[in-house]
Amino acid sequence: MTPTPRPAATQRSNDTRHNRAGLARHYTAVRERSRALAAPLSPEDCQAQSMPDASPVKWHLAHVTWFFETFVLERFEPGFKPFDPAFRVLFNSYYQGVGDRFSRPQRGLLTRPDLATVWQWREQVDARIARLIEHTHSEEALRLIDLGLHHEQQHQELLLTDVKHLLSINPLRPAYRRHWPLVPVVAVDPRWIEQAGGLVEVGHAGEGFAFDNELPRHRQWLEPYSLMNRLVTNGEWWAFVQDGGYTDPRWWLAAGWDWVCAQNLRAPMYWTLPTETGAMPSVFTLHGEVGLDPHTPVAHISHFEADAFAHWASATHREWAGARLPTEAEWEAAAAPLVVQGNLQESHALHPLPARAAGEGLMQVYGDVWEWTSSSYAAYPGYRPAEGAVGEYNGKFMVNQYVLRGGSCATPTSHLRASYRNFFPTDARWQFSGLRLAR
Amino acid sequence: MTPTPRPAATQRSNDTRHNRAGLARHYTAVRERSRALAAPLSPEDCQAQSMPDASPVKWHLAHVTWFFETFVLERFEPGFKPFDPAFRVLFNSYYQGVGDRFSRPQRGLLTRPDLATVWQWREQVDARIARLIEHTHSEEALRLIDLGLHHEQQHQELLLTDVKHLLSINPLRPAYRRHWPLVPVVAVDPRWIEQAGGLVEVGHAGEGFAFDNELPRHRQWLEPYSLMNRLVTNGEWWAFVQDGGYTDPRWWLAAGWDWVCAQNLRAPMYWTLPTETGAMPSVFTLHGEVGLDPHTPVAHISHFEADAFAHWASATHREWAGARLPTEAEWEAAAAPLVVQGNLQESHALHPLPARAAGEGLMQVYGDVWEWTSSSYAAYPGYRPAEGAVGEYNGKFMVNQYVLRGGSCATPTSHLRASYRNFFPTDARWQFSGLRLAR
Amino acid sequence: MTPTPRPAATQRSNDTRHNRAGLARHYTAVRERSRALAAPLSPEDCQAQSMPDASPVKWHLAHVTWFFETFVLERFEPGFKPFDPAFRVLFNSYYQGVGDRFSRPQRGLLTRPDLATVWQWREQVDARIARLIEHTHSEEALRLIDLGLHHEQQHQELLLTDVKHLLSINPLRPAYRRHWPLVPVVAVDPRWIEQAGGLVEVGHAGEGFAFDNELPRHRQWLEPYSLMNRLVTNGEWWAFVQDGGYTDPRWWLAAGWDWVCAQNLRAPMYWTLPTETGAMPSVFTLHGEVGLDPHTPVAHISHFEADAFAHWASATHREWAGARLPTEAEWEAAAAPLVVQGNLQESHALHPLPARAAGEGLMQVYGDVWEWTSSSYAAYPGYRPAEGAVGEYNGKFMVNQYVLRGGSCATPTSHLRASYRNFFPTDARWQFSGLRLAR
Amino acid sequence: MTPTPRPAATQRSNDTRHNRAGLARHYTAVRERSRALAAPLSPEDCQAQSMPDASPVKWHLAHVTWFFETFVLERFEPGFKPFDPAFRVLFNSYYQGVGDRFSRPQRGLLTRPDLATVWQWREQVDARIARLIEHTHSEEALRLIDLGLHHEQQHQELLLTDVKHLLSINPLRPAYRRHWPLVPVVAVDPRWIEQAGGLVEVGHAGEGFAFDNELPRHRQWLEPYSLMNRLVTNGEWWAFVQDGGYTDPRWWLAAGWDWVCAQNLRAPMYWTLPTETGAMPSVFTLHGEVGLDPHTPVAHISHFEADAFAHWASATHREWAGARLPTEAEWEAAAAPLVVQGNLQESHALHPLPARAAGEGLMQVYGDVWEWTSSSYAAYPGYRPAEGAVGEYNGKFMVNQYVLRGGSCATPTSHLRASYRNFFPTDARWQFSGLRLAR
Repeated sequence: MTPTPRPAATQRSNDTRHNRAGLARHYTAVRERSRALAAPLSPEDCQAQSMPDASPVKWHLAHVTWFFETFVLERFEPGFKPFDPAFRVLFNSYYQGVGDRFSRPQRGLLTRPDLATVWQWREQVDARIARLIEHTHSEEALRLIDLGLHHEQQHQELLLTDVKHLLSINPLRPAYRRHWPLVPVVAVDPRWIEQAGGLVEVGHAGEGFAFDNELPRHRQWLEPYSLMNRLVTNGEWWAFVQDGGYTDPRWWLAAGWDWVCAQNLRAPMYWTLPTETGAMPSVFTLHGEVGLDPHTPVAHISHFEADAFAHWASATHREWAGARLPTEAEWEAAAAPLVVQGNLQESHALHPLPARAAGEGLMQVYGDVWEWTSSSYAAYPGYRPAEGAVGEYNGKFMVNQYVLRGGSCATPTSHLRASYRNFFPTDARWQFSGLRLAR
Repeated sequence: MTPTPRPAATQRSNDTRHNRAGLARHYTAVRERSRALAAPLSPEDCQAQSMPDASPVKWHLAHVTWFFETFVLERFEPGFKPFDPAFRVLFNSYYQGVGDRFSRPQRGLLTRPDLATVWQWREQVDARIARLIEHTHSEEALRLIDLGLHHEQQHQELLLTDVKHLLSINPLRPAYRRHWPLVPVVAVDPRWIEQAGGLVEVGHAGEGFAFDNELPRHRQWLEPYSLMNRLVTNGEWWAFVQDGGYTDPRWWLAAGWDWVCAQNLRAPMYWTLPTETGAMPSVFTLHGEVGLDPHTPVAHISHFEADAFAHWASATHREWAGARLPTEAEWEAAAAPLVVQGNLQESHALHPLPARAAGEGLMQVYGDVWEWTSSSYAAYPGYRPAEGAVGEYNGKFMVNQYVLRGGSCATPTSHLRASYRNFFPTDARWQFSGLRLAR
Repeated sequence: MTPTPRPAATQRSNDTRHNRAGLARHYTAVRERSRALAAPLSPEDCQAQSMPDASPVKWHLAHVTWFFETFVLERFEPGFKPFDPAFRVLFNSYYQGVGDRFSRPQRGLLTRPDLATVWQWREQVDARIARLIEHTHSEEALRLIDLGLHHEQQHQELLLTDVKHLLSINPLRPAYRRHWPLVPVVAVDPRWIEQAGGLVEVGHAGEGFAFDNELPRHRQWLEPYSLMNRLVTNGEWWAFVQDGGYTDPRWWLAAGWDWVCAQNLRAPMYWTLPTETGAMPSVFTLHGEVGLDPHTPVAHISHFEADAFAHWASATHREWAGARLPTEAEWEAAAAPLVVQGNLQESHALHPLPARAAGEGLMQVYGDVWEWTSSSYAAYPGYRPAEGAVGEYNGKFMVNQYVLRGGSCATPTSHLRASYRNFFPTDARWQFSGLRLAR
Repeated sequence: MTPTPRPAATQRSNDTRHNRAGLARHYTAVRERSRALAAPLSPEDCQAQSMPDASPVKWHLAHVTWFFETFVLERFEPGFKPFDPAFRVLFNSYYQGVGDRFSRPQRGLLTRPDLATVWQWREQVDARIARLIEHTHSEEALRLIDLGLHHEQQHQELLLTDVKHLLSINPLRPAYRRHWPLVPVVAVDPRWIEQAGGLVEVGHAGEGFAFDNELPRHRQWLEPYSLMNRLVTNGEWWAFVQDGGYTDPRWWLAAGWDWVCAQNLRAPMYWTLPTETGAMPSVFTLHGEVGLDPHTPVAHISHFEADAFAHWASATHREWAGARLPTEAEWEAAAAPLVVQGNLQESHALHPLPARAAGEGLMQVYGDVWEWTSSSYAAYPGYRPAEGAVGEYNGKFMVNQYVLRGGSCATPTSHLRASYRNFFPTDARWQFSGLRLAR
């Protein structure tokens, strides 16, 4: 679970994918992974949209295919002819440069095409992309295919979190997959790990793939700081709940307090609080409803909740005095030397797992839950969005969102980097989002 | 198309259904009809809910089965055991007396049970109801089965109007069934048919089935009045649109004007106005998108629109001076002598049809479109709701809704009567709703 | 308090007002009454608007003056010149025929003109109307002045109910006027008074003033019915509250139940429920906060609440079996023979008062509280709105509202008639609205 | 207009105010200034609240007095007795530590106490504070009085912007004060001024007054950058409007585009676009409606609009390539050497004024309009909120807001510093907010 320093020799080289055979293999693997994630679901499960922020599984499967057809095949395939011209509008997410798009909150109403047709579309596009990889003379086409695969990996994570939200609404409490991954562990005590700070460099370095928002690499000045060795746990969060954390405005930002009151919240998403004193909450997971495990990292909290917890922790526990969220630069500076490994999508746990007492350093840096930072999502100095419609990928969301780092149990390993920036509004909590304290 | 006076000897006797064999046959026929209506639809089509007022097809199919299991089998079947105890909550529509129910606007999110399971449920319940019809000693059980069939017929109409709404949102403009029923006709001129009025009796008479809201039969005083021989047509409505009908507050009730402005409406639901002058609108139907036929009755208008049209017609056409909506008593007094026949669900047109010049009397009284009346939906003097939870069927909706009469192209013939009262809020227009002028 | 049969000889003849001197006296009296009602209020009190349904006192004072300037002086005054041309838009309420109007929910933001200017406007218009009454040759002008006075009387009642709402929001719980009118009384037991029904005539008769919505007088058939001798009291309502009336869906219309749940209501408007068991509620009045008097008629209930109370009363009290709201025809047929007298605005109580045991017949028919009926507000058969913009006065509100009868403690006596129809939506309760049971 | 380098010797020493006589004089001056700002307004003007974000003038006058009574007198005055105990709740803005508060959007409904009473309260508190300044032994009391004066100065600016919003809603377009300050000027061409960047220090230094959010002073690394010599003008903005800036999604952040579409915006707040081509917009000011002056800095733009303008400018003007909003550190590093002078509240212009060609350096740094930065409002490293309820002053708003710098024509000069941080949500535009480009 504990990432260890990464020798330069083992560094995964993304650019080998621009080697055609490697890219073709990676393409097949990522696309197959999407199919595997959808396998446990019925056509009905793939149709429904449980909230405007979420999308139907069928829409995810179609949209990532739309990306390849619209941004790659349309420009680079000789004699391009779309599978169905209407899909260009139906499955555009938000790219204004592409033209019209279908209303986002109504995606669950697109019962045509049906799921079977979407699978046919995917197969046809896969064959055409395979031919393109083999024959194209365009480096840009290959780069855009690589971008499309990272795009599809993002949607794999969303597919899982969206379907979790959908299933949670059903009073039958159905499981996505019953395979409960938890085993008994020895609790790991929280401990501060000191970091030197100073003039550090952040942002993507090297030749591998990176999104435009990770560039350019640049300098930042950091005062010395500490990070907690592991993530905040359910048990620690339950103490916060029992101490009246959700009903005491002292711990909350003003906007957070308004949000908690308006939504009448008392716990993280997916928790069901016990009706009897002394009992523990239960929690909805992709494996169905289970009892809350105190050593597991807390998940499905908003930025508001993460910030409130830090204020509470700082004020009520002497050993946590000064606790706060880390900045994204603090997180990245500490994570940069570590190998990307942990409880990621490939572990098939589909749930965060407790830290295990296996070392002195930072644990759970990659995987388990995305870690909220105090950094608002903004352009790095000198940032330039990509050319064309794909330039709308990242830059236009750089306001009123906050950065999360480190990936989760739903993130594919090959998708992550130390410089990877995820971002969500301060009230979002249907992602696998948690926190690590800093001070 | 023209209803003709109904000789007493041919009066359909609903009570023969209480004859067990007849009831069993009727049960089979109604249930089979629901299956036939769902046949053209995929599991995805049956899953989605396009607005809070509408329900998914799968939910309709399950809810009408829930009615039989909850109100009949649970009380009268020896050794009753539900197909799945959770369905009691999942598929309760609004019966507080039954207990909890699932949130109405989220019905489209119930991806479990899937459609196949709902069909299994239906088959199991059908077998159990067949046994009950054969063996029960309870007259009430038989009466409740008959009520359940009328209930299912109501949902058949809703199934069609709800799926029409769902398909209309899809930019692919898919058809429910391609079988366009229109043939050229000779236009029927509008003509006033005088009615005597006086002290009339309204409400259900005789022994056949009726809902509690049609009772008791009682006296009302009517001044002499006239009804138009046929329904208002698309052509007449198009003249209203072209005359600025939707932008002139003179014609509208204050609440109607607020509604038109807030929704920015310019035409009935499902119309697409032409972008070129001189062109005609197109209209979405269960058979896909077609050109507007001027002789076909206008459909999918709200009470507000019907009322505005009558004000406009009265003020702008000498021969329509004094035009208004009829009261429900005026409608019923005129319709009572006529046989229930017309363009109803059994014609398979699934769309209103033009009047044909075949007589002197009232045409299109039954079928084609529900006719808005000026009567708010209220209890008849001496009204008593049915006992138990089924007493919630009608009475508790008797406020802020207006009565429609006469059935539509989606209404089963055996479901209608002269005394039948349909009702919707003044802004509802996804039903096959139109109007006949009175004065 | 008990209205007694009205001898024909004492009938107030409204048409004497068309006698110029009488009209001039009446004009002065009504206008002076508005001034007196505003006297206890500061410029700040007259400025604020506490909800979109209410208007600022200053706006009321200006709007009724606008009515005289726009509908009378503009048409009939030689050499007409408005006090300020901008006021034509600022103080138009809803008359589309007059042109633009200022946004209703923002009336409280019109700090200019200030209150002093509005008073100047009123004085100037009063002088000009006085001259017009003396010199005009137009009967229509005199009739419109009479209409304007009835219009102003309606706004006097609204002024009182709107300022009550405004003051109730202030935690200081300020009084409009401290002059508590209640004296100890002997409780009057509820008793049913039978009414014959049959073919009755309703609507305005005779030559006096009436609004267009009271016409034409027409026949209705009524089955025999009974009315309660007095209004429902606070004590009876408190029993309903204590019996869980606001938390039991059985008593409520579906729309009413949705409303109660959405608003989280537990009692009539202006009640503060006690926090200790055994204690009584307190209630906010125009005289400040007072303890709830059990013999006083309940006030500030919506149509939904009135209907729910009737269902509860019918089901839980044998002597109230069959209780329901009266229809407006039932109310009018019973009230027609009675003189208009009671606890009206002229009593200066500004609060409903308990019935006093002074007779066998119907008590509290006029005054105290408006009585909700089960009748939706609709046009009488043959109804014709007035010509011109004043035709928008009544007819365009004839949908989704319900009729109240009998006036309240805020209604001027000369404003009322047996045929008078007040109307509000089913959730309105800031008026002095109560109920009398029928069966 | 052009700030010039500030010799250390002339630095205003805030701490001389802790010299009692100085503080007493400053107290009198600030309080008197509030009175002067309210002088042109009627009791009605002071009562109304035009939107939830704004407050009535009366409320501002009361709330700043509440601050002194609650945070100073209640703790430090011997034998403290409040003017009216109810005011503690009525005029609390958001301090949870103080207890209850009155609902913010309803402040305009507090017609009691009236304006005269609030003035009496102010006078009484002024006398008590004067005694306290003379006699107290508490340094903290003096510091809190100083804080209260800065607090009052903030509310003076809000008073002006709130009353501007209120008056703008009135179709009479009333002026706050008619004294139009504009004189003809020679246009100043835009020019980039280069800044060195590097490891700079930001945050308050020295002994004078500062808010807690300006502390601690800390290091930041800045890449080299340039700032525009003057603010963006109305003329430049009008070019943006005419080029379709508000209807082209390319220029907008996704959230900004949603906001523009939802609000259907086409220009800055208070602009009225011309209906004829070739004509210029008019604009509402505190002096009434005037024609748009092209050389005046644009005002009343949101962060979304500022950001969109920068994108447009960068893409369409070669000399503006790379234009963006400055960070707050970039702004502060450039402003730090300059004296605080410019078109501030003391100029009595109450409107931004054109730059005048008077030097080579940065113009309009202080005053005219607040300058939006790209920096989200966040805690400085090592930030500690003040102790007690005044600790709620700043820290709890540090999310989802963006920083503005430099003050406006409504800001008192003695209130400003280079390190001063103003902050508003990205859609706020009723402040005097504009922008200066960076790259």
